[in-house]
Amino acid sequence: MLNWSIVKENFDKENFMLNETLFHLANGYLGVRDSFEEDFRGKLKTVRGIYINGFYETEDIQYGEKLYGYAEYSQSILNITDVQTILLNIDGEEFSILQGKIKKFKNELNLKEGYVKREILWKSNSGKELKIDIKRIVSFTREELFIIQYNITPLNFSGEIEITSLIDGNVSNITASDDPRIGTANAKHLDVVKCEVKENIGIIENKTKHSNMSVITSCIHEVNKKNQLNIEKEHDKINFKFSLEVKENEKVEFVKYSVFTDSLRYENNYTENLKILNEVIKNGKEFYIEAQKVYLNEFWKTSDIIIDGDEKLQEGLRYNLYQLLQSVGKDMYTNIAAKGISGEGYEGHYFWDTDIYILPFFMFTNSFLAKNLLMYRYNTLEKARNRAKMMGHKKGALYPWRTINGDECSAFFPAGTAQYHINTDIAYSFIQYYLITEDKEFMQNYGAEVLFETARVMFDIGHFNREGKFVINDVTGPDEYTCIVNNNYYTNIMAKYLFENTKLAWEILKENKEQFKKLKNKIEINEEEIKEFERAKENMYLPFDEKLHIHPQDDSFLNKKVWDFKNTPKENYPLLLHYHPLTLYRYQVCKQADTILAHFLREEETTLDIIKNDFEYYEKITTHDSSLSTCIFSIMASRLRLKEKAYDYFINNARLDLDDLHHNTKNGIHTAAMGGSWMGVVFGFVGMRIKNNNLHFNPLLPDNINKIKFKINFKHRELEIILNKEKLDIKLISGDKIDVYIDNNKTTIE
Amino acid sequence: MLNWSIVKENFDKENFMLNETLFHLANGYLGVRDSFEEDFRGKLKTVRGIYINGFYETEDIQYGEKLYGYAEYSQSILNITDVQTILLNIDGEEFSILQGKIKKFKNELNLKEGYVKREILWKSNSGKELKIDIKRIVSFTREELFIIQYNITPLNFSGEIEITSLIDGNVSNITASDDPRIGTANAKHLDVVKCEVKENIGIIENKTKHSNMSVITSCIHEVNKKNQLNIEKEHDKINFKFSLEVKENEKVEFVKYSVFTDSLRYENNYTENLKILNEVIKNGKEFYIEAQKVYLNEFWKTSDIIIDGDEKLQEGLRYNLYQLLQSVGKDMYTNIAAKGISGEGYEGHYFWDTDIYILPFFMFTNSFLAKNLLMYRYNTLEKARNRAKMMGHKKGALYPWRTINGDECSAFFPAGTAQYHINTDIAYSFIQYYLITEDKEFMQNYGAEVLFETARVMFDIGHFNREGKFVINDVTGPDEYTCIVNNNYYTNIMAKYLFENTKLAWEILKENKEQFKKLKNKIEINEEEIKEFERAKENMYLPFDEKLHIHPQDDSFLNKKVWDFKNTPKENYPLLLHYHPLTLYRYQVCKQADTILAHFLREEETTLDIIKNDFEYYEKITTHDSSLSTCIFSIMASRLRLKEKAYDYFINNARLDLDDLHHNTKNGIHTAAMGGSWMGVVFGFVGMRIKNNNLHFNPLLPDNINKIKFKINFKHRELEIILNKEKLDIKLISGDKIDVYIDNNKTTIE
Repeated sequence: MLNWSIVKENFDKENFMLNETLFHLANGYLGVRDSFEEDFRGKLKTVRGIYINGFYETEDIQYGEKLYGYAEYSQSILNITDVQTILLNIDGEEFSILQGKIKKFKNELNLKEGYVKREILWKSNSGKELKIDIKRIVSFTREELFIIQYNITPLNFSGEIEITSLIDGNVSNITASDDPRIGTANAKHLDVVKCEVKENIGIIENKTKHSNMSVITSCIHEVNKKNQLNIEKEHDKINFKFSLEVKENEKVEFVKYSVFTDSLRYENNYTENLKILNEVIKNGKEFYIEAQKVYLNEFWKTSDIIIDGDEKLQEGLRYNLYQLLQSVGKDMYTNIAAKGISGEGYEGHYFWDTDIYILPFFMFTNSFLAKNLLMYRYNTLEKARNRAKMMGHKKGALYPWRTINGDECSAFFPAGTAQYHINTDIAYSFIQYYLITEDKEFMQNYGAEVLFETARVMFDIGHFNREGKFVINDVTGPDEYTCIVNNNYYTNIMAKYLFENTKLAWEILKENKEQFKKLKNKIEINEEEIKEFERAKENMYLPFDEKLHIHPQDDSFLNKKVWDFKNTPKENYPLLLHYHPLTLYRYQVCKQADTILAHFLREEETTLDIIKNDFEYYEKITTHDSSLSTCIFSIMASRLRLKEKAYDYFINNARLDLDDLHHNTKNGIHTAAMGGSWMGVVFGFVGMRIKNNNLHFNPLLPDNINKIKFKINFKHRELEIILNKEKLDIKLISGDKIDVYIDNNKTTIE
Repeated sequence: MLNWSIVKENFDKENFMLNETLFHLANGYLGVRDSFEEDFRGKLKTVRGIYINGFYETEDIQYGEKLYGYAEYSQSILNITDVQTILLNIDGEEFSILQGKIKKFKNELNLKEGYVKREILWKSNSGKELKIDIKRIVSFTREELFIIQYNITPLNFSGEIEITSLIDGNVSNITASDDPRIGTANAKHLDVVKCEVKENIGIIENKTKHSNMSVITSCIHEVNKKNQLNIEKEHDKINFKFSLEVKENEKVEFVKYSVFTDSLRYENNYTENLKILNEVIKNGKEFYIEAQKVYLNEFWKTSDIIIDGDEKLQEGLRYNLYQLLQSVGKDMYTNIAAKGISGEGYEGHYFWDTDIYILPFFMFTNSFLAKNLLMYRYNTLEKARNRAKMMGHKKGALYPWRTINGDECSAFFPAGTAQYHINTDIAYSFIQYYLITEDKEFMQNYGAEVLFETARVMFDIGHFNREGKFVINDVTGPDEYTCIVNNNYYTNIMAKYLFENTKLAWEILKENKEQFKKLKNKIEINEEEIKEFERAKENMYLPFDEKLHIHPQDDSFLNKKVWDFKNTPKENYPLLLHYHPLTLYRYQVCKQADTILAHFLREEETTLDIIKNDFEYYEKITTHDSSLSTCIFSIMASRLRLKEKAYDYFINNARLDLDDLHHNTKNGIHTAAMGGSWMGVVFGFVGMRIKNNNLHFNPLLPDNINKIKFKINFKHRELEIILNKEKLDIKLISGDKIDVYIDNNKTTIE
């Protein structure tokens, strides 16, 4: 089944880094780029990387001019001990895909079984032929575990071979001082503090220089043939050399188990590591291969979207959903990084991408994982409170624009901290979670506090102007091509929604008297303050232009010249890499959906006519230089019944990484766009929305799709939704009957 | 005469750095802080510094997130080889003002003779008494020369003393990572590449690591008594030890000559240095002491302001004018740094301070020095053209916000490069220079080109909006507490003036056909473009609020809340050190005069009633956290006949450094405020303006001043202006008769 596998049958030497990303394996904790077992460093462009989500180094951020309240230190996800290297020597000739003759090559990512496989038929320069099958698993059920199964079959000879397996603690991050989307700090972050061999187990401990974290990497090997093992230990690496006799057409099975434990999760990560490794050896590789299948079977059962009639789209979509599962942090320390655990782009940071682009998928298909993501935000609330104080707010919380551990580490505040909408985005996801799950307890224990504290800061940055309208000045909206503006439509709309829902949270909180009292005391909030929020909501100023009948992105947006797109050469995109920010600020030009995103999230705030005007207006001036853009334009094109446009934007987004449309997938996948592709189907083609607490559908099936089928959870029901050329069909799989609205017609699903 | 000397008779150990600044000596090229001859390092807070104007090190600016077009490298004025140390050992006891008993202490800066003197009566712990007189000169007539004359008279003993004089190449800059007004780069910039002794001359060569500059420092000594010299040379320092017999009441005269030459000015600075040193020895110290008097006599003849009746003010004012002379670069490589050559604050950078605050003084009193400052701007025009290209402008020039060599080195563009008004400020000074001197040739050869090129960029950042008005978006005005705004009143007014005067320049240029043709070809400018500037001028949008009848600082200024001054503790000023920029941006709060400055420079643009409204409005919300503020408020208070206010603001400004009112004079003097104090008298109290090509006066003498007297040059005339309680008297000292206007009444001065 092609659609369950991503397959490449030619080895593209020039774009190896892209392949490393596309075929990387991860499980929310551990991420391994597909850098192959041969060591290509110095031979082709490679980022040979293994990462742990939430495991980072800090460094003082250097500023040419440092002002009060600037983020103090960076946080960078770390490339940890390399275990990918396995070298194969056949009588003096070393196997490498870069030499000899490749008679067959196949790289496969299997989405159903959760492995990456590489199959090669290779003929050495001296004429020796081998079949090499390599299979890798990063286990979903034992998150510290990475297995390489390296099978060798000599096809036309017998003799001696040598397999050298390496554990290498001498690792670095990459740097790219010209691209602000990649870290610019120093590259060598980890010291090797332990390097030892115990009962043929190789163990290396890496320690950070500043953040006081360590990671233990252990490796052990299995070979299905008699062999002679020779171990060479240096101060920061260990070589395991296996010599063995092979016979023509007899398969050698070589297995390398690697276990990674960090000091963030385990107080004694050395002991825990070896305990896990022992358990792994006892269970054996088949156990994990089987468990992987079971785990993924469960995942696809609830989360798959079937697209009938468009294979490329089906492939892109499944790939994306699989990557979201690979990327999502499953413990309290982690969230979803902008690049997942697939590379070093954006330094492994968490942005609003999670809250606005990715959480909908998990909230509707797997509330357990969604809850964990929200808990990460709750757990960093105290840091957000401290940040708010630093930013001059007497109370409330301000979430960081980009972070790993909850502290702000945006080094350019006009496109970072100034994006106060992060507060509203996070609050929005807590509200949505409540609407989808009806989980009052979660709202009482966590959500309400987040809503109140974020609302306080949004209230504090605004004020009632001379006309009595509530205005919010000097913020940056989602579109980073215009920074520090007044009354960004998106920010104001989202703040309004947040203010509105503090009342909902307040009422729900009241139902639990004890918790109500506790929280009131803890953050000193009272009914008066909720009323103030209400007043701000009632009087929220929303920019509107009477002439053009559109919502300007902010107060002064329409006073600017439109960017000269005609005379902008194609190679000057993305614009941020070719123009000074001030140049961009001075024009009507958008990096991404901003007002259009506001319309998607809060359609209730305006009319469909105006949305149409806005869509037409902003479409002309949006470059989609951000990967967060086309999915929103696709959804809103669907909403406006622009069938072809909706499809075009969608396919652009759904295959963004697979087809490397932004030319930077080599630095990692684009998780927000992946979440956006789920939204493009569910909120776009199927037109699903929550309105007045009910599910609404307003479907528009693109012409070259025959059928869309997926499941969602909503208010304790599991529903299956099938859209085909004729109609939208909704089936109740479990739970009580429920009323939904299809094209505004009420229907009872039972 | 107290008013010609600044005297301190008590040694303030706690504020030594302040003293080092206040009593520093400079001559536009070389600056020496008054760090004393004893070495206090490690004993009290000191910045032991010697600097050369325009001599700097570069380093890559580090950005946490670097975007396109960011300034690439820093430029930092360098603390060069230390020659200040002279140690005096009397039979095992070392003289230091920090020990023994001080029976008399006097530190004096003589403004008429241009020296700093220190007189001490000192009793050692064992009871030996000495009179020590130390006189220092940084020569105005031989700019590479610094002389220390160290006189010792034993008062109650005879015996052996040892004088150790040091040349120390091991020098560093200071750093202060918490204060954006001081450099944050690494401190150790200079390597010692030569350290030698030749015929008792000590020579050290220091080289920068990146900017490829070097400085040669040579020292030689004279002693009026037989002595034994012992020279100890290390790799980076040289000790000259003089042993001699002294007799009770016989004065020992010890003289140390130091000569500094840099590779910026001299191709072979080693040879040149020794040539100069030889010349110095031949001439002897008295020659330079005498020349210094003559030089200063000439200066005061044209530049003094006599204030009768207010000694503190007279002292402050003379001190300021003297410092301006000390600070002003007198060759093509240099300008006037924000801190002169007195310290490391603002890294020795040149800002708009020169063009708007300091040039008026020189233009009206010493056009030769003024011309040199303008030529510095002309000489860096090519760099400004390159910068404009980098900033996305197809033609024109954009001057750097802060620089030494003409390249932008502002590391925070919202309060740096975004201040496009720098272009209009520089153009303004070229226009004023023409109006004052009628120097058509200078306009034809230099001014016109600067005007056209700066106007082009101002034209490019604006556009005609939907109503046909010319608007300028996304710039920062002088007030840095509100960054990246639209239609900053100051910027628009100044751009308008620039556009207007391109026409004047065009007409003057036409008078020289050859130069007209040359420049037309060089920068491809034509009449059409001048007409476009004219159109922008005619349609310039100037924000005005109909309700309050004031000019808002920018489009959205009045939509912000007024800062809560009542609840801002005194210690939270200056605000920039206690609040995040975004917090400041969000309120109506001004660091300095912005709209008020626009009114001062371009009163013609509005009515006096509105200016009064503005004054009252902005006065309430201006913190004067910038040292460029009170002088402007003083001038405009005079203009509005607010006599007391004018005086209060003025005295605040005139003694800003002498009384350390901003608590940071330790890092250097405030040259802009000093220029502002000249303006406060001439443009403020005396109310002088150029209007329609004529001089106008609108005097208002403060109550506690009896008389103000000063000279100016205007259109080839030298005028003496005397304002007393009764009247304003203007005398023609040289040149043809001229019409001036006193309180709008035409008077012929002949």
